[in-house]
Amino acid sequence: MIKKVLVANRGEIAVRIIRACSELGIESVSIYSEADENSLHRKIATESYCIGPKLSKDSYLDMISIITIAKKTGCDAIHPGYGFLAENSDFAEMCEASNLIFVGPMYETIALMGVKDVAKNTMEKAGVPTVPGSDGVIQSIEHAKEIAGGVGYPVIIKASYGGGGKGIRVARNQEELIQNYRMTEQEAESAFGNKSLYIEKYIENFRHIEIQVLGDYHGNVVHLGERDCTVQRRMQKLVEEAPSPVLSEAKRREMGETAVRAAKSIDYIGAGTIEFIYDLNDDNFYFMEMNTRIQVEHPVTEMITGIDLVKMQLKIAMREVIPFTQEDITFNGHAIEYRINAENPSKNFMPSAGKITNYIIPGGFGVRMDTAAYSGYTIPPYYDSMIAKLIVHSDSRGEVIQISKRALGEFIIDGIDTTIPFHMNLLRNEDFINNNYNTNFLAENDIML
Amino acid sequence: MIKKVLVANRGEIAVRIIRACSELGIESVSIYSEADENSLHRKIATESYCIGPKLSKDSYLDMISIITIAKKTGCDAIHPGYGFLAENSDFAEMCEASNLIFVGPMYETIALMGVKDVAKNTMEKAGVPTVPGSDGVIQSIEHAKEIAGGVGYPVIIKASYGGGGKGIRVARNQEELIQNYRMTEQEAESAFGNKSLYIEKYIENFRHIEIQVLGDYHGNVVHLGERDCTVQRRMQKLVEEAPSPVLSEAKRREMGETAVRAAKSIDYIGAGTIEFIYDLNDDNFYFMEMNTRIQVEHPVTEMITGIDLVKMQLKIAMREVIPFTQEDITFNGHAIEYRINAENPSKNFMPSAGKITNYIIPGGFGVRMDTAAYSGYTIPPYYDSMIAKLIVHSDSRGEVIQISKRALGEFIIDGIDTTIPFHMNLLRNEDFINNNYNTNFLAENDIML
Repeated sequence: MIKKVLVANRGEIAVRIIRACSELGIESVSIYSEADENSLHRKIATESYCIGPKLSKDSYLDMISIITIAKKTGCDAIHPGYGFLAENSDFAEMCEASNLIFVGPMYETIALMGVKDVAKNTMEKAGVPTVPGSDGVIQSIEHAKEIAGGVGYPVIIKASYGGGGKGIRVARNQEELIQNYRMTEQEAESAFGNKSLYIEKYIENFRHIEIQVLGDYHGNVVHLGERDCTVQRRMQKLVEEAPSPVLSEAKRREMGETAVRAAKSIDYIGAGTIEFIYDLNDDNFYFMEMNTRIQVEHPVTEMITGIDLVKMQLKIAMREVIPFTQEDITFNGHAIEYRINAENPSKNFMPSAGKITNYIIPGGFGVRMDTAAYSGYTIPPYYDSMIAKLIVHSDSRGEVIQISKRALGEFIIDGIDTTIPFHMNLLRNEDFINNNYNTNFLAENDIML
Repeated sequence: MIKKVLVANRGEIAVRIIRACSELGIESVSIYSEADENSLHRKIATESYCIGPKLSKDSYLDMISIITIAKKTGCDAIHPGYGFLAENSDFAEMCEASNLIFVGPMYETIALMGVKDVAKNTMEKAGVPTVPGSDGVIQSIEHAKEIAGGVGYPVIIKASYGGGGKGIRVARNQEELIQNYRMTEQEAESAFGNKSLYIEKYIENFRHIEIQVLGDYHGNVVHLGERDCTVQRRMQKLVEEAPSPVLSEAKRREMGETAVRAAKSIDYIGAGTIEFIYDLNDDNFYFMEMNTRIQVEHPVTEMITGIDLVKMQLKIAMREVIPFTQEDITFNGHAIEYRINAENPSKNFMPSAGKITNYIIPGGFGVRMDTAAYSGYTIPPYYDSMIAKLIVHSDSRGEVIQISKRALGEFIIDGIDTTIPFHMNLLRNEDFINNNYNTNFLAENDIML
């Protein structure tokens, strides 16, 4: 049994985890940096402690301090949320060594999926389709030319330890390959401390479709359907929905079964997401990467399945058996999530930290709000710019868009800029309404014009 | 087609109606009194106009002014919400005479159901079970004695034109009958301008269970299941839930079918509610009254059916056919609504108007908020004390109670007193948890102790 959880995060996901704990009768300990003294996650937890100065490395990334507080306050588990230490296998291992349950997969799994080319090879062996490319790390520029010639241009060069949209470059011919190979190598070395690269065929016309999986300690693995996260800006998701409006029922089943096979092959424990490239040219899908944590966009899956994913994470961490089978899971209606970021979409999404002088949020039928902001709250400039998630659920995508328009229109947020005008414009865009877009949508269309 | 609706109300129900209009692409005109200049229903409507001074009789009850504004602004319909003019047949008739669609039933229906003994007789003729008593108005004290002797004591004396918990008295013997007959007669005359009374057998151990119905202009009538509103204080509902935890499946079907028969017998149009006394001693139910409007507690029905009742009201007013049959309507999970009133439950629910200096509301999975309050909002003392409705939806009543506890605990409302501590205590009460209560529950138990 878990009786007390340290929530090693901030913002809306910390609030989300505290809510799940509270509903399960579990006490929560929140940590906050000096810049987060007035944060909501501090206010609503059972207990809360200042963890250190404003910079993440001195606070939310300070593993020793976090584990120390967890032990001192009598916690038996740590929930990492997303970002920060969520996919740090060293931290997960330290938790285990300190006799604290890490609410997530085994640390070996985190490490395995953290190295992109290793994860890809692992999935390939489990029979999961992968994009043709180098079978592991590229040894030399000659090797790179050979692989690119084999799979055909354009190709994509990726850092093995990359992430967050960094360490990725496209090459459309041999000249670009030579040039970008060197540049990506340098970037990988400086950003991730490791210059390993691998190469893949570049699929240009695709949707980002991911499958939510759950695995328990008793060998059960189920999937909870897909999320379509194709609306991205510089590889950062802005809008996510479930189900994907482009998938056939047969393809949906095939992707779900593939994800379950993939998770089973690595004895996956907890909530995880297998991200796929869904090639619109030939309706094939390929493994992209696996996220070994709860994701920002998890609520859209919760809305259409009725299953609380964070409570499931905690229950699985308590060694409970997943209380439903694949056949028990049904999908109801459609859900879309909008990330409300403190950014100015008219000024190239420039961050807009500061004091929120007025904060009135939408409500009513079909509307779910996950937020840690409030009237009078000052957004610190040191962390992620997301201040709220609006999630709308209804019978159909068309209904969801109608409700979304009125809900987005209801927000009154004074003092900062937000991505709300972007979302309003997106919902008026014919290509968005008609599902006629791929991951290049925002690069090719200025939604704010 | 309706293109523009005047919303003849204030507070959360005005916001609720504006939301429904917006989602249907209908423009909204809100009216506000001088005391409601900073109200949210004013801010979020397409247009808004000051209707008059603070007192309801000079503003929200001013029929001529409301119809004048509706005509001047080019509205084609008026939605009355609940309270104020919602069940005023004269107003509905005036709307019709002014060529404005009254979003509600025909004015004749409102008039028919507005006189309690007439409504009861009408239902009796339609084969709806009613509580034994006088067949219409009591003519004299001798007549009253005769009826009471016939049905047996205790009896309840009711004003034909009564409502809102006024004009009702119980008599446990002939002495009390004589005394209370005179007092109720006087109260009825002064409060409702009509001293007509009728008498019924008094059922002491009952639950308040009501059935939501919808009727259209094409002869279709369906029911959307029941709401259990047994948690009442002085006949004012505080907590409502759906489905009722005390009904068997057979009884649920029987009550639903009875409600549909009742609505059909009066050619009911729009959304309406048939309230029943559900006698816990013998599992029988009896017609109590019909509410010919949308009700405060309608969201719990929306949550378990997935049907937007206010949008249905508007669609029916546009002469649309109800787009589902009785068989299409399915019930998912359980929902409870908590009325957050600006009242102090520790001081006998004394009203607590004033400025809300801080207003942070719960959110997340399973939580719906319907509110017109916000940080910095000053509650005027002239109107209803309800500032918000928290509605929680999940798989089971037990899950709903868990989520409700955490959601109620998340509210941060500074500057005024609210009924939140009452609700928190209620959720710890064993009798509430175990469904072991009737309408006398709050009279017999001080939940705040």
